[in-house]
Amino acid sequence: MTKMMKAVVKTKPTHGGELIQVPIPEIGAKDVLVKVAATAICGTDFHIYEWNEWAQQTIKIPQIMGHELAGYVVKVGEQVTSLKEGDFISAETHIPCGVCYQCKTGRMHVCQNMTIFGVHQNGVFAEYAVVPEVVAWKNDPAMSPELAPLQEPLGNAIDTILSDQITGLTVFMPGVGPLGQLGILVAKAAGVGKLIVSDVNPYRLERAEELGADVVLDARKDDVVSTIMEVTKGNGVDVVAEMSGNPIALNQGLKVLTPGGRLSLLGLFNKPVELDLNNDVIFKSIKVNGVTGRQMFSTWYKAAALINSGLVDFNKIVTHTFPLEQWEEGMKLMESGNCGKIVLTVD
Amino acid sequence: MTKMMKAVVKTKPTHGGELIQVPIPEIGAKDVLVKVAATAICGTDFHIYEWNEWAQQTIKIPQIMGHELAGYVVKVGEQVTSLKEGDFISAETHIPCGVCYQCKTGRMHVCQNMTIFGVHQNGVFAEYAVVPEVVAWKNDPAMSPELAPLQEPLGNAIDTILSDQITGLTVFMPGVGPLGQLGILVAKAAGVGKLIVSDVNPYRLERAEELGADVVLDARKDDVVSTIMEVTKGNGVDVVAEMSGNPIALNQGLKVLTPGGRLSLLGLFNKPVELDLNNDVIFKSIKVNGVTGRQMFSTWYKAAALINSGLVDFNKIVTHTFPLEQWEEGMKLMESGNCGKIVLTVD
Amino acid sequence: MTKMMKAVVKTKPTHGGELIQVPIPEIGAKDVLVKVAATAICGTDFHIYEWNEWAQQTIKIPQIMGHELAGYVVKVGEQVTSLKEGDFISAETHIPCGVCYQCKTGRMHVCQNMTIFGVHQNGVFAEYAVVPEVVAWKNDPAMSPELAPLQEPLGNAIDTILSDQITGLTVFMPGVGPLGQLGILVAKAAGVGKLIVSDVNPYRLERAEELGADVVLDARKDDVVSTIMEVTKGNGVDVVAEMSGNPIALNQGLKVLTPGGRLSLLGLFNKPVELDLNNDVIFKSIKVNGVTGRQMFSTWYKAAALINSGLVDFNKIVTHTFPLEQWEEGMKLMESGNCGKIVLTVD
Amino acid sequence: MTKMMKAVVKTKPTHGGELIQVPIPEIGAKDVLVKVAATAICGTDFHIYEWNEWAQQTIKIPQIMGHELAGYVVKVGEQVTSLKEGDFISAETHIPCGVCYQCKTGRMHVCQNMTIFGVHQNGVFAEYAVVPEVVAWKNDPAMSPELAPLQEPLGNAIDTILSDQITGLTVFMPGVGPLGQLGILVAKAAGVGKLIVSDVNPYRLERAEELGADVVLDARKDDVVSTIMEVTKGNGVDVVAEMSGNPIALNQGLKVLTPGGRLSLLGLFNKPVELDLNNDVIFKSIKVNGVTGRQMFSTWYKAAALINSGLVDFNKIVTHTFPLEQWEEGMKLMESGNCGKIVLTVD
Repeated sequence: MTKMMKAVVKTKPTHGGELIQVPIPEIGAKDVLVKVAATAICGTDFHIYEWNEWAQQTIKIPQIMGHELAGYVVKVGEQVTSLKEGDFISAETHIPCGVCYQCKTGRMHVCQNMTIFGVHQNGVFAEYAVVPEVVAWKNDPAMSPELAPLQEPLGNAIDTILSDQITGLTVFMPGVGPLGQLGILVAKAAGVGKLIVSDVNPYRLERAEELGADVVLDARKDDVVSTIMEVTKGNGVDVVAEMSGNPIALNQGLKVLTPGGRLSLLGLFNKPVELDLNNDVIFKSIKVNGVTGRQMFSTWYKAAALINSGLVDFNKIVTHTFPLEQWEEGMKLMESGNCGKIVLTVD
Repeated sequence: MTKMMKAVVKTKPTHGGELIQVPIPEIGAKDVLVKVAATAICGTDFHIYEWNEWAQQTIKIPQIMGHELAGYVVKVGEQVTSLKEGDFISAETHIPCGVCYQCKTGRMHVCQNMTIFGVHQNGVFAEYAVVPEVVAWKNDPAMSPELAPLQEPLGNAIDTILSDQITGLTVFMPGVGPLGQLGILVAKAAGVGKLIVSDVNPYRLERAEELGADVVLDARKDDVVSTIMEVTKGNGVDVVAEMSGNPIALNQGLKVLTPGGRLSLLGLFNKPVELDLNNDVIFKSIKVNGVTGRQMFSTWYKAAALINSGLVDFNKIVTHTFPLEQWEEGMKLMESGNCGKIVLTVD
Repeated sequence: MTKMMKAVVKTKPTHGGELIQVPIPEIGAKDVLVKVAATAICGTDFHIYEWNEWAQQTIKIPQIMGHELAGYVVKVGEQVTSLKEGDFISAETHIPCGVCYQCKTGRMHVCQNMTIFGVHQNGVFAEYAVVPEVVAWKNDPAMSPELAPLQEPLGNAIDTILSDQITGLTVFMPGVGPLGQLGILVAKAAGVGKLIVSDVNPYRLERAEELGADVVLDARKDDVVSTIMEVTKGNGVDVVAEMSGNPIALNQGLKVLTPGGRLSLLGLFNKPVELDLNNDVIFKSIKVNGVTGRQMFSTWYKAAALINSGLVDFNKIVTHTFPLEQWEEGMKLMESGNCGKIVLTVD
Repeated sequence: MTKMMKAVVKTKPTHGGELIQVPIPEIGAKDVLVKVAATAICGTDFHIYEWNEWAQQTIKIPQIMGHELAGYVVKVGEQVTSLKEGDFISAETHIPCGVCYQCKTGRMHVCQNMTIFGVHQNGVFAEYAVVPEVVAWKNDPAMSPELAPLQEPLGNAIDTILSDQITGLTVFMPGVGPLGQLGILVAKAAGVGKLIVSDVNPYRLERAEELGADVVLDARKDDVVSTIMEVTKGNGVDVVAEMSGNPIALNQGLKVLTPGGRLSLLGLFNKPVELDLNNDVIFKSIKVNGVTGRQMFSTWYKAAALINSGLVDFNKIVTHTFPLEQWEEGMKLMESGNCGKIVLTVD
């Protein structure tokens, strides 16, 4: 008789999702089966929940949602060599093919044949999940199961903030959603000289203060560009870390970026963006880098190290914890914007 | 009695310019006076000649045109220590202030208070020119006076093509005007694995063939994107070196850029450009760098070395040479697009 | 009548020095005269005091000692444009020529014709000092005069620790003298994942604990290599920051350096060092970088930013403060090794 | 009945080797069996042949020699997914474990658990060889079987010469053995401004001239340091690419390296080397990088591209071709030093 498990499943092509019983999945020769201990909600999960345009074009129904994970290996595929039962793991959610040009040149995070947990295949908002060995990440057994799933989004923040030298530099980071909040912790841990952030949500602006941003701008009221130029004595900032996906914020960032500075792009935009390339990129000799996924696995080593070091307290980032059964409360919080990371625990 | 000299001067706020007699300029304490031997026409000079929107907003009349130069020092300012009469020099045309944040951190080419020869102050289409010591570049006396002025635009091509590793990589360079033609020589000298170029001007496409581009695409007729994907076996190119200032070409470049690849922007655009940042930069983890001026003076060392080494024949780049008096024939050739670099010699 | 000032002068080619009256120096056209407010003792100053072999070969007597400085501009040379009376400044102590290959390519800190304050010319342990405009660094008026001189050695620590990415990485730093102590603060500010240090002096080992090193090894008693390999679970460290100038410590560092890791060398060695290049550098694909002086002036911007940000408390680094008159007490403390940075204040 | 094949086997712990019949090897689930078409002799193979100290400590007898390879897949292990019968392949000879810290962070070439073809396991001087899928490299079917094995040592030369920017820079490369000869071709392809080489073997000095080195120094007769300083007008060279494994040559390289320059180490030394770290590395702010193996597989893409591009003629590098049966003639040539790469063809 097939064993069953609880899972949050996108069952219909509309707003929402359902917590239902589904069979515990089978694993392939190169996979492990994981008993999920905790998972966290990502903006992507919310977009699938709300069923936005991107989700409608991308997600095949029915599918288990979720991709940020911590759990214990309970079954090991026959070709798996580096994992064993009982291992406490998280997982990189971008599953690379291993043989394309990018995979062969150390850039698996931009694999040409990428599949993504909870997007192209069943996810982890469930009691059990299938994890390919190639993306499994062994956690320090001492790491808290509630913090371990955060390594994945923390990795995005790391690749955004730390794409080049940052210590002692001046940084402007528009957007203080959950990723931006992780960005504040990374920036503080890395010794940014001055961290300026902006947002339009009062809850998030308050969070930014709590988490230690040096200058917090309310983009609805403050003159972002002139304030930053004043705070930086006319030089502008060395780095812009774009977390908002807002074209106005991006253009503000480009205006305040000091000539020769760099711009990291993580936030996704609703549509193509118009840029004054001559004045904002070419004449200023700006360096731009797009950030997606996480470097496999150098970013994971840094993420684990930052959490384990205790340099900054990552517990601050988890504003809400629910049992899996109350997953929809988490989604509603995501909708309001009034949250940091939301963790779902699984018995 | 004031000594006079011939100079090409922008005298009226309309299309054109005049070869007239003007006083030989006085030098300041930190300048040298140079007897010009040869000068070359840049796209910027042509824009001042045709009096386009940018020129109308930027140029104060009357002003001597031109900025690419080779000549001999004939007089030395009292505070000048590193130059003497008889030195054969060229000059960086971006004159830095020396004290701003950028100048203090090795990025003088993006000085906050930059002035530019032939744009913000009198230029070099004349018998004599004033060169501040800080931008003077001593040439090897053996370098041909007709090639020496080319070091300046060659520097742009170098900073575009060589902004990171290039040897053995696959490159797409849209735009085969004079700078693109220099780009071909730089790319060939640097051992690019495969160099693909595109343009719409038949003369330039022919030039590209002659100068050694591996694949030459006519953007009016060829399907640029699908041809490049085919030539690169579906991987796309490692590097896009944008020389055209054409938004269609830029977007073609972004489409064929392999995930993790890099884009150098040198060509200037007529207006802001719309970019699909999500799909073309962020998800592909693209690195973009804007190129302006030349690194002072590491780029000049490379430019001089490439010419002096004889690895590629830079004489091929000079398609026309005129005496200064026939400067307007050069401008007309620039207008047609049917030229490489045009050199003006000065007796 | 010549005005006189107090100065600590190396007057004889033997151990020691003298606080005597000397004329207030004249400035050149490109210099400023500074009323010294505070200065700090560097290991180099101590070597001149003790008159070691290097000092005997290098120093011309008589000479005013000292080079780390904070003070106020009281007189401005006629060609100086960026400073005025009353400016609160410190100074880079490596004075570059401005015209050699290195100076022309953004590497003034390795100028071929370098002169150094207090080594090749009169220093700053005095009431007044001559500072060339080119090395003057304007301080934030709010910076404490006792901390401002520390920017110079802090710059060495910055260039050693931050020569490449460091956040989240594991670091071994042998040597916890004053520069090593600054290194601890830089490493902590920059978010090092784990910082392991070693020394043989009990005072310094205690200082390392106080300043926040994660693992403190007593090289007289602990098995440095095996302990580090254990602490790093067999991987070794990502970075070795060599501050000791001790060949045994260097070789320990190379043994524990993870393959592909990097080694920064700041500590000076008494004589040539034997290295197993095959096993310790080549087969492990190690990157080594020598550190001298400070990048002009990108390092200074970072040093000032770290102090001003308050991320770490640099007051902790100053273990002793004396008036200039008691300078020799400072030298004796340096001899014992039982100190952090020693500041001399000048009325 | 076991099928047999010809193979060059190290059968006794003394100078020499034997061409004997051995069983065609079995493959594992993740391997392919390759019918060898051509192989080339490396210095490592020669050291095993001559049975030097390193070989005595490292090689377990009996073992098939050789590791540079081109051949055709004739059998495919059951877990292999990216190769099929008939594929024309070469192979990276450093076989990584896939799970250590280095393998997990894109540095498989310094895997902590590396095994090497022909060193730690049977090699390729044979009619058939076992190649793990993870190190297989698919060749362009149009590449000559005699050139394909050269991609492996070419990769070493690439990682040495191209470890950072090189176009337009001045390079000193001591050592013109087979790897140094490949280095000349790489340097020329990459547009080195001036390439200076040294050796003591007249044959090799002549080869250096033929292959295009700009300045060829006979280290027995020429004053290497003063000549290079003269040729470089007192600046020294930007890059030293150490191919000789000779400590005198290394120290000459360090003396002529311009402050701020870089040193790549590929040549292996017979014993530890004494270095004046203060004057030659620290005060000059030199960057050193050890080179081993090849980046997997970014270096292979470059190696293949350089050969396929025809920019330089790699046929020039093959000075001798023998059938496998005459392998020992190749070894004798290696002993004399009078050769470039020696290729062994296999029917």
